[in-house]
Amino acid sequence: MRAVVRRAGKLICDTIDELDPGPGQVRVKTLSCGICGSDLHALHFLENMVEAGRRSGGGGDLNPAADIVFGHEFCAEVLENGPGASRFKPGTRVVSMPVNMSPTSFDAVGYSNRYPGGFAERMILTDALLLEVPNGLSTDHAALTEPMAVGAHAVASAALDKNSVSLVLGCGPVGLAVIAALKVRGHGPIIAADFSPRRRAAAEAMGADIIVDPAETGPHTKWSELGVPTTAEGMRAALFGGIQYGRPVVFECVGAPGVLQSVMEGCPPKAQIIVAGVCMEADRIEPSLAINKQLDLRFVLGYTPEEFGQTLFQIAEGKIPVEPLITSKVGLDGVAQAFVDLGNPESNVKILVDPSL
Amino acid sequence: MRAVVRRAGKLICDTIDELDPGPGQVRVKTLSCGICGSDLHALHFLENMVEAGRRSGGGGDLNPAADIVFGHEFCAEVLENGPGASRFKPGTRVVSMPVNMSPTSFDAVGYSNRYPGGFAERMILTDALLLEVPNGLSTDHAALTEPMAVGAHAVASAALDKNSVSLVLGCGPVGLAVIAALKVRGHGPIIAADFSPRRRAAAEAMGADIIVDPAETGPHTKWSELGVPTTAEGMRAALFGGIQYGRPVVFECVGAPGVLQSVMEGCPPKAQIIVAGVCMEADRIEPSLAINKQLDLRFVLGYTPEEFGQTLFQIAEGKIPVEPLITSKVGLDGVAQAFVDLGNPESNVKILVDPSL
Repeated sequence: MRAVVRRAGKLICDTIDELDPGPGQVRVKTLSCGICGSDLHALHFLENMVEAGRRSGGGGDLNPAADIVFGHEFCAEVLENGPGASRFKPGTRVVSMPVNMSPTSFDAVGYSNRYPGGFAERMILTDALLLEVPNGLSTDHAALTEPMAVGAHAVASAALDKNSVSLVLGCGPVGLAVIAALKVRGHGPIIAADFSPRRRAAAEAMGADIIVDPAETGPHTKWSELGVPTTAEGMRAALFGGIQYGRPVVFECVGAPGVLQSVMEGCPPKAQIIVAGVCMEADRIEPSLAINKQLDLRFVLGYTPEEFGQTLFQIAEGKIPVEPLITSKVGLDGVAQAFVDLGNPESNVKILVDPSL
Repeated sequence: MRAVVRRAGKLICDTIDELDPGPGQVRVKTLSCGICGSDLHALHFLENMVEAGRRSGGGGDLNPAADIVFGHEFCAEVLENGPGASRFKPGTRVVSMPVNMSPTSFDAVGYSNRYPGGFAERMILTDALLLEVPNGLSTDHAALTEPMAVGAHAVASAALDKNSVSLVLGCGPVGLAVIAALKVRGHGPIIAADFSPRRRAAAEAMGADIIVDPAETGPHTKWSELGVPTTAEGMRAALFGGIQYGRPVVFECVGAPGVLQSVMEGCPPKAQIIVAGVCMEADRIEPSLAINKQLDLRFVLGYTPEEFGQTLFQIAEGKIPVEPLITSKVGLDGVAQAFVDLGNPESNVKILVDPSL
């Protein structure tokens, strides 16, 4: 079958061999698959990612020197059930958490030498993990279940209360998913900040209440405007005045060195910082700032099966608008160029790959 | 009155003027006052601490260039009630959170140019914050309420469950207070690690279950011995095997550069790290490790009034053993040398100051 293969740090359109579905597995036809920021990073720095994963107690046996087919944000169509797999008839549209698992094995679909991801005409998935795409939900929107579930997990990890004020730093796909997850749960106000006008427009379309261009306005200036005290004196005044205010929560969705320290400097005391942006480099922080402010930093990754499933149905019900994310579609031939284009935040938010194009 | 004054970065025994107790204030005689690690740091680096405080939204008007009398871990005797203060008769032994506060003012006792701390014969305190020392509780033990409350707050900030395994890194007064707070709440097993034999002995006396000399054994080797999976594969095996294990919690009570990164490298996935050690320097971390492991870092400081009061009564009831902390007592003349002695973790844990000696 045709696939986009990462080989020697480059993306190459090639023809590759296919596995047959094993016990509990299903062969599917890829209908639509998003390109993720992690894929962009993995193209050039997969060796570092694998090493970081091993040092984190992850591991698996991914070999960066061997062929890999990326793509873990997909919607697909069931073609053929393997032995013991019978939940869905051929022709059914499905999404899945991007893993193949059994009690004795675990492979990340899209970061595996064994199982090609969605930048290929067909994939092998695990029957037990498939979720049928509800009637009426478009294939492209269903493919966004995975990135939107990342936002659901980040928000579920936050200790938000009904008065909380949220600041979303970075309005790429992760930040937009966080905004959507906040909105669907009724949390607000939401301040969203990004240097890119295109991404600020997407944040507004997703429902952010206050949009900030950090080149013009420090995002942290908004806290006091929204009634959140930013000094110990202000907190005591609120306490003595009986003024209630919600816990400030910052969603760090940038993932670049220096951002964490700038958040720690700018955020109010007692803030919670949900770190969803993946900074792959070493970073510098001043712990004394975090101690003095009693900050809570939660580093989040992925989602639970429940969050994944709930996200699919919220997209289907129109509660999570995903259209603002989709900025273009390409075939397998266009994937390599799409990776280049995504380097410019102004040109795109999410590019979908349709192997039939 | 006689007091130990920080002046030009040195500690000097001198005679200083006294304030009279204002409305809602009480004049007390200092009976016993502990020397805190923060005092040691403040002696040499108060300018940095004040600047870090201001950058954290703290502030106040502390002037490091003017005289300051340290001492915020005290037990005292009521001498004279100011206007409107009448809760306790002269002669009553009291402890207090080390602040003087009113709806319009806030001063840290012991870090104030206005209110001398406990390294002085007498102090001015806020009547409303005083707690009477229960009958039968020794003055020296009561003076340890403040540092032990720090442990209560750290433990209250942790999301411990009944199966949790705790690792306490650093067995100075903060680490020992954490061990005591874990024990009194019934949490265990507790692994305690410190390079100093004296501090390891104190950790054992406080009730730690497993004592580790990091020079001989990596503290993080104990997780798997206690059934906590340290790899993603181990976590999946536990999940599929129906094996329950408690959430791992690390209490970072060292506060030196590099410790946080080493904890992030060594701790199990999904661990919670309670940062109670105050690292005043900039530090280097690898956020990708924290993301991959989904770590939760909570930076804690101080305690609530409830935690402070509860700690006093737990000490009085003998539920928190504080005797292992006290390693010597000095008069005001001995404070400067005691600050030097505390630089060696082998010579002392907690030194108490009794101005009558």
